[in-house]
Amino acid sequence: MGLINNDFMLKNETARLLYSQYAKDMPIIDYHCHINPREIYEDRKFDNITQVWLGGDHYKWRLMRSNGVPEDEITGNADDFTKFLRFAEMLPKAIGNPMYHWCHLELKRYFGYDGILNADTAKEVYDLCNKKLQSDGMTVRSIIKESNVRMIGTTDDPADDLRWHKALKADKSFDVKVCPTFRPDKAVNIDKPGFKEYTKLLGESADIQIKSLADIKQALKSRLDYFCENGCRATDHGLDYVLYEKSDSVTAEEVFKKAISGQQITQAEADIYKTEIMLFLGELIAEKGIVMQLHYGAQRNTNSAMFDRLGPDTGFDCISVKNCGEALTGFLNALSLKGKLPKTIIYSLNPGDNELIDTVIGCFQGTEAAGKIQHGSAWWFNDTKSGMEAQLKSLANLSLLGNFVGMLTDSRSFLSYTRHEYFRRILCNFLGELVESGEYPNDEKTLGGIVKDISFYNAQRYFDL
Amino acid sequence: MGLINNDFMLKNETARLLYSQYAKDMPIIDYHCHINPREIYEDRKFDNITQVWLGGDHYKWRLMRSNGVPEDEITGNADDFTKFLRFAEMLPKAIGNPMYHWCHLELKRYFGYDGILNADTAKEVYDLCNKKLQSDGMTVRSIIKESNVRMIGTTDDPADDLRWHKALKADKSFDVKVCPTFRPDKAVNIDKPGFKEYTKLLGESADIQIKSLADIKQALKSRLDYFCENGCRATDHGLDYVLYEKSDSVTAEEVFKKAISGQQITQAEADIYKTEIMLFLGELIAEKGIVMQLHYGAQRNTNSAMFDRLGPDTGFDCISVKNCGEALTGFLNALSLKGKLPKTIIYSLNPGDNELIDTVIGCFQGTEAAGKIQHGSAWWFNDTKSGMEAQLKSLANLSLLGNFVGMLTDSRSFLSYTRHEYFRRILCNFLGELVESGEYPNDEKTLGGIVKDISFYNAQRYFDL
Amino acid sequence: MGLINNDFMLKNETARLLYSQYAKDMPIIDYHCHINPREIYEDRKFDNITQVWLGGDHYKWRLMRSNGVPEDEITGNADDFTKFLRFAEMLPKAIGNPMYHWCHLELKRYFGYDGILNADTAKEVYDLCNKKLQSDGMTVRSIIKESNVRMIGTTDDPADDLRWHKALKADKSFDVKVCPTFRPDKAVNIDKPGFKEYTKLLGESADIQIKSLADIKQALKSRLDYFCENGCRATDHGLDYVLYEKSDSVTAEEVFKKAISGQQITQAEADIYKTEIMLFLGELIAEKGIVMQLHYGAQRNTNSAMFDRLGPDTGFDCISVKNCGEALTGFLNALSLKGKLPKTIIYSLNPGDNELIDTVIGCFQGTEAAGKIQHGSAWWFNDTKSGMEAQLKSLANLSLLGNFVGMLTDSRSFLSYTRHEYFRRILCNFLGELVESGEYPNDEKTLGGIVKDISFYNAQRYFDL
Repeated sequence: MGLINNDFMLKNETARLLYSQYAKDMPIIDYHCHINPREIYEDRKFDNITQVWLGGDHYKWRLMRSNGVPEDEITGNADDFTKFLRFAEMLPKAIGNPMYHWCHLELKRYFGYDGILNADTAKEVYDLCNKKLQSDGMTVRSIIKESNVRMIGTTDDPADDLRWHKALKADKSFDVKVCPTFRPDKAVNIDKPGFKEYTKLLGESADIQIKSLADIKQALKSRLDYFCENGCRATDHGLDYVLYEKSDSVTAEEVFKKAISGQQITQAEADIYKTEIMLFLGELIAEKGIVMQLHYGAQRNTNSAMFDRLGPDTGFDCISVKNCGEALTGFLNALSLKGKLPKTIIYSLNPGDNELIDTVIGCFQGTEAAGKIQHGSAWWFNDTKSGMEAQLKSLANLSLLGNFVGMLTDSRSFLSYTRHEYFRRILCNFLGELVESGEYPNDEKTLGGIVKDISFYNAQRYFDL
Repeated sequence: MGLINNDFMLKNETARLLYSQYAKDMPIIDYHCHINPREIYEDRKFDNITQVWLGGDHYKWRLMRSNGVPEDEITGNADDFTKFLRFAEMLPKAIGNPMYHWCHLELKRYFGYDGILNADTAKEVYDLCNKKLQSDGMTVRSIIKESNVRMIGTTDDPADDLRWHKALKADKSFDVKVCPTFRPDKAVNIDKPGFKEYTKLLGESADIQIKSLADIKQALKSRLDYFCENGCRATDHGLDYVLYEKSDSVTAEEVFKKAISGQQITQAEADIYKTEIMLFLGELIAEKGIVMQLHYGAQRNTNSAMFDRLGPDTGFDCISVKNCGEALTGFLNALSLKGKLPKTIIYSLNPGDNELIDTVIGCFQGTEAAGKIQHGSAWWFNDTKSGMEAQLKSLANLSLLGNFVGMLTDSRSFLSYTRHEYFRRILCNFLGELVESGEYPNDEKTLGGIVKDISFYNAQRYFDL
Repeated sequence: MGLINNDFMLKNETARLLYSQYAKDMPIIDYHCHINPREIYEDRKFDNITQVWLGGDHYKWRLMRSNGVPEDEITGNADDFTKFLRFAEMLPKAIGNPMYHWCHLELKRYFGYDGILNADTAKEVYDLCNKKLQSDGMTVRSIIKESNVRMIGTTDDPADDLRWHKALKADKSFDVKVCPTFRPDKAVNIDKPGFKEYTKLLGESADIQIKSLADIKQALKSRLDYFCENGCRATDHGLDYVLYEKSDSVTAEEVFKKAISGQQITQAEADIYKTEIMLFLGELIAEKGIVMQLHYGAQRNTNSAMFDRLGPDTGFDCISVKNCGEALTGFLNALSLKGKLPKTIIYSLNPGDNELIDTVIGCFQGTEAAGKIQHGSAWWFNDTKSGMEAQLKSLANLSLLGNFVGMLTDSRSFLSYTRHEYFRRILCNFLGELVESGEYPNDEKTLGGIVKDISFYNAQRYFDL
């Protein structure tokens, strides 16, 4: 019996029943990911497993670096098999790491491989995968369909013309919803290099010359309208930290003008502008009835030398444990006071924030949806068995687990849909343990309903799909 | 076998033995709660279960709001059965939430109901409870006596005349000690609205015209004397964050005069005054030989719109994760240096503070009591199975669990004594697991002694009852 | 069957196999401790168990204080048996505390005692231990040899002449490596009393008159050279908090001159100097190819009255939860940018930092070693079963557990080598649970290799032994 068998992660009878009868066959709503819609439209094929696994996955790169592998054999010029071999050599040391499970889940589900990947089996696995990747069943669209995906929420810049989303919508041969997600970070990050240039780009996309705060607001509004016309169900905001530095539009305007004219601005000034824009966006989002996602608690690009070499999102980010509690409630309260608090999902990279977030969401619920304000699924570094269990336990302790909108992949890879399987197994195991330890009645109908809701129906309702 | 059976929460043999033989029949010392002494004196009866359960319980309100229930059907004008039904409909989604257990424990112990509360059974349960509430066995005093309660520590303002405590003491037909707890928050919170008005009220109660820092100190001293004459065993202090902003009495006096004359004061000034008063009170408390309780780590009234509608303590508070470590040791050290550090119980709403607190208490112990400085039982949002286990584990790891003064309800409801049962079951399960995993000898006598101490005797000794 | 039996802490078959076949007989590398090399050289004998156990162990003192024992019977003038008895009386209350296990492990392994220590057995144990301590098998060297120790890393001031390390190296009758560790805290702590005096002492040891920043750097460099000539494999840095207050050498020089001339310096100034010196040292350490250990997150000497009475390291320290994330990455990045980041082990006293550290180390790995940047073993207050499990789990989740350099005692006692046994049992149990719950293949060869690596070989490679 291989590592990935029917009972994988399911340690009690109730868990096995719940998973096999209620979770396994539910479709997938992958409402937040980073895959490229063009690759879906063009139905991309991959040359080899190194391209799929090691082409852009900074999780894998980090583990290889932790094993002392030289960068050349990770992201550099070494040949593809060498890179794969270095990864395979490292893998046995990743005992207890989710990577161990993710890889073997993907090998089993997409390549039918039932063995263990290590230095000895690297060549065999490499050849098997590459052969399989040549088959017609392994195009992007086939993988998505085979994975039972109903909706994909990509991540898109407001200036994006959404041409591939439109093309996909027009293509009747592919019935999976591919929805753009509005991610206006570049318009918010007034203190990052390239802001001025970005406003130009954004202005062009909206056909507005951006010279003032009012202009950029108008451009963002126009682009959000456009996104919503093209199926957008959510926005996403990556914040180093949550900020709530309330000032007034006049001051924010001054800050904007300073920045746009190339003058240096202070952190406090930046925060004033960002707060102004985030509040503006929050109101718009509420008016649209779509969902606002807040991701915070990352310290990004900590290694300057590697940033200069490889750029962002290459595996040099870490958790930030900065206290954002007061800013978070301040921000939500400001929107709530105006009656313009949208449906909101909050994610922190700091696992120590679980309980904070689960008590914050309880302060701002509303009648627009059961579970209007959500604590998002364990994010990034927390996307581990114990990280997901901690999020589930905290959410269950402090809120209504039954209303949880559940899993998303947050992935750049088309093979990551097995993460939904991973999550559902852990969820069923969590619920099954509550039942078998006598903490919840053994009522299959209710339990099955909860499992189906968290796996699929809650997200379907929440995102109005 | 219903959810609440003999083995509820007791997952091993040792746990079951310890609970049934050593914990179950120990009396209850509920040294910190928010029940109304007048209702004890008048031996109140309740009209229906909605009044008891949903009349003031913000835990329940939060869960209903998290389910999208409109406020009118929570705290508003909807009829009592509708409110109860909305609660019952929500409850199955609260899988893993302590509310699920608390409700079923109360239904079993006080109403003899062995089934599961949900939308289908709501009417049946509603009728059963309401019928039972009409019986003589369901008056406040009967419930307290039946629950085997020996002492109740209420929470009282220094200006309170304690008339109901006095009346209860004089009433020989009721032998449960009902002790006032001195909670001078309004005299400390110089930066909150109503401070000036409050000093007037406090002054009247002490027959002192409060015009200076010395006056308010004198008034507080006089009132604490009065409280102690009337059975007070402890004070309680609700602090948003622990502060230790040492200045001098002259500066503190200036701040006080500024505030009392209606001028705006800064946060730093407020902290100076608060530190001065807290140190003054700490010394007094030490002189009295009673217990100082410090509760910190809450962010209160985060939702302004709902605060304006419903006021404080209505379910819009959350955890604060602000670092109070240095202030906490600074404050305790200042009292210790004067030889005036009272017996102290520290509670934080941030579960991430468990280990911090358990190492802080180890720095300030003394010979006045075994476990002179205590880490209080898992508070408020942490009052869950895993929250209590985390507090027990941290306390056991870093201090002497055997000296723990144990559980309190912190409740506004007369049906909450089952929380002591909940705690004791979790405690026995925790200890039993240590034994059965070979981490502590299977010595029934010693284990039984520890269970009885934590359930009852430690608190009895600590509060000099 | 006594508490300490073959299966102690080993709760599953795989764990028992791994421990008995792969962990038990591996030698010990105790790369960080506080024992006195002179006592090794002189092969000290102890008069009685009170001297060994209660002579300097602040863990034990804290627990006794938590039991209300007067200081006289802890560190004061009471007779040795009374002190031992007070300890024994307290011990049963320490249920769930690692002290309970440490004591019984030492009693079993070094004294052959199989019973339980408590008030009833105190006299019997006292007599047994004292008799055994008179035997030749209980000298310091015998204990070290019997414990299968291969290397000991002591903790030494840069001004130390290392005479005992040299004498030990010259003594061919004792083949355990006793390596000095360079701990320059007194040269870093410009804001602590005695800094000026210390620079004099340091200068003398390096034969340099220290009058400037350049001088103290030169002296430190000279002493580190000397340490490395005498077998030093690592440095150690005790930081209240990690700091990274980048300025320039000129400013740092000004701060130094101010301090050395007796003027008051601000916290910001102190941080500038400390950052300058720590960066200077980091570069040196990288050049030497040895290991830099960073210990942070302690709040020290919180109880002034007891500090005045007993001095530092007497049990009045606690955890600090200050956020050091940004400073930590800033410091590592600065060294990395210069190509001078040494092998580094990071320890925080705040268990809430586990995930932060495990993501930080992943940002700065290199090819000098597999696991170049390490998250150190659960430190001090975290050196408990659950603390070690939390560190292992976080490390496994976020990095490569297989590269972990493992356990150290950090101890002042010669009986503490059983802590390595404690760690290895917990490690094997952790790995065994992963296997038995189907999260890692049951591949004995690979698992055995991981156990031997973490127990011994990783440290041997990492410290170039």
